[in-house]
Amino acid sequence: MSDKAIIAFLGTGLMGAPMARRLLAAGHEVVVWNRTAAKAQALAGDGARVAASPAEAVAGADIVITIVSDGAAVTDLYFAQGAVEAARPGAIFIDMSSIQPSVARDLAARLGEAGLHAIDAPVSGGTPGAEAGTLAIMAGGEAADIEHARPVLEAMGRVTRVGPHGAGQLAKLCNQAIVAITIGAVSEALFLAEKGGADPAAVRDAIRGGFAESRILDLHGARIVARDWSPGGPSTLQLKDLDNVLAAASEAGVDLPLSRQMRERYHALVHDLGGAELDHSALYLELEARNLSPT
Amino acid sequence: MSDKAIIAFLGTGLMGAPMARRLLAAGHEVVVWNRTAAKAQALAGDGARVAASPAEAVAGADIVITIVSDGAAVTDLYFAQGAVEAARPGAIFIDMSSIQPSVARDLAARLGEAGLHAIDAPVSGGTPGAEAGTLAIMAGGEAADIEHARPVLEAMGRVTRVGPHGAGQLAKLCNQAIVAITIGAVSEALFLAEKGGADPAAVRDAIRGGFAESRILDLHGARIVARDWSPGGPSTLQLKDLDNVLAAASEAGVDLPLSRQMRERYHALVHDLGGAELDHSALYLELEARNLSPT
Repeated sequence: MSDKAIIAFLGTGLMGAPMARRLLAAGHEVVVWNRTAAKAQALAGDGARVAASPAEAVAGADIVITIVSDGAAVTDLYFAQGAVEAARPGAIFIDMSSIQPSVARDLAARLGEAGLHAIDAPVSGGTPGAEAGTLAIMAGGEAADIEHARPVLEAMGRVTRVGPHGAGQLAKLCNQAIVAITIGAVSEALFLAEKGGADPAAVRDAIRGGFAESRILDLHGARIVARDWSPGGPSTLQLKDLDNVLAAASEAGVDLPLSRQMRERYHALVHDLGGAELDHSALYLELEARNLSPT
Repeated sequence: MSDKAIIAFLGTGLMGAPMARRLLAAGHEVVVWNRTAAKAQALAGDGARVAASPAEAVAGADIVITIVSDGAAVTDLYFAQGAVEAARPGAIFIDMSSIQPSVARDLAARLGEAGLHAIDAPVSGGTPGAEAGTLAIMAGGEAADIEHARPVLEAMGRVTRVGPHGAGQLAKLCNQAIVAITIGAVSEALFLAEKGGADPAAVRDAIRGGFAESRILDLHGARIVARDWSPGGPSTLQLKDLDNVLAAASEAGVDLPLSRQMRERYHALVHDLGGAELDHSALYLELEARNLSPT
């Protein structure tokens, strides 16, 4: 395509709005729609055209981007709300939501039957990454489609093709598994430091720059030391991600014992300890709680 | 003390030799001793004086540094080989070996009774960090002693006091627990990527720079993708570290379920799967093996 595309952008929430702004700033023509209309309207001042329905947004677009809450919401937009029916032949549908890999593969198959192209391209980096255009974008789909869409995707972050349809979503789950387990690792280290008579804040500081260094030790380690459980990333979403990790593992026929343990422990944090809306670093509270109960 | 100290340096192996060179380069007077004499002799060209025994090295020193294989070796040097007896009153004994926190506390108590000062100051960063003088140095002991020794320690790396006697060793165990568990996390993510149909090398690349970023994803992730199990850090040492983590946890009366699982799995890698001398990233092989066996 030419460098400047006509883009339908469906879902302008916390992540979608700054991502759409990056596309506008890069000179693309962006038509936005959001279930809560005011959130789409807010982008008019940035140069977006606001559509009254998903179908209206999609009509005439080269690229359709969705970023919504889950696979059911994507499926609803595509089929029940007419986005697929309204699309011009050969359009590329890029779903940047975090959904199950199996759903992403199903959607790609159905889009293919309708003469459309699909890319699953979930992101990591949060709203700061969305605003700065530095998201990690994990793309699954046909290599030619991803290359075609690359100028658009690169306005939002760093794009890596990780495999065929569904592989982008699988990569996001790999990311989330590492995040959860590393929070568990940092929790155990700082808990041992505290209970063994060292200063946890000083231990965190001392071991940074060595092999234990991680974004989690840096950011979530600081939260744990400060006992600051305000989200951030709520534990209930971490539990959903781990459920999806285990579903993907089951589908691939593999056992992941650390992910399995973390799923059980986030389940306890969310359902037994009232931690659903606490930041996922609050896994530390589960570690404290299990050390109060006789086992 | 003045900026330039007289230092006895006992144990000039892979780590000790470059550390002693940093001290010499900083202008300190360094007397070296090593069990295998040739390794000490090699430092004569850098300006070290070579002693024939630990006691000879220690006589007249302001500071005695040891970095040897384990707590038994440190205890042997201090007491059976006469280092403590030869020391001048008020000398500071800095053990930079990785040993159990309880042994470090015992040694500190015995040194105190002999009128000497003790610091436990294990390091992280490997031979590259030792050569560059950028080791992470986790120091336990009296704050005044650590401040007194700081100019000497800072010639070798970044010094953080993490608590009283034994806390430095505890911090090292915290570091090692995070390393082992994070290797487990990266292994599960890359295994899921591979078995789920994505490209593990691309997934590793895609998720770097996000919340999953760590030194382990960078270095050991690359080893796993390349199936390069040459050490590095042998799995048998990782198992020893995890045994010490669990011993310290038990002593502190705490349960660390991720460390416990990793200890069992490194035990299987070392004792059932023949991986003792493979790099600790070979935990990936344990994950593969458990996925071949019916559970």
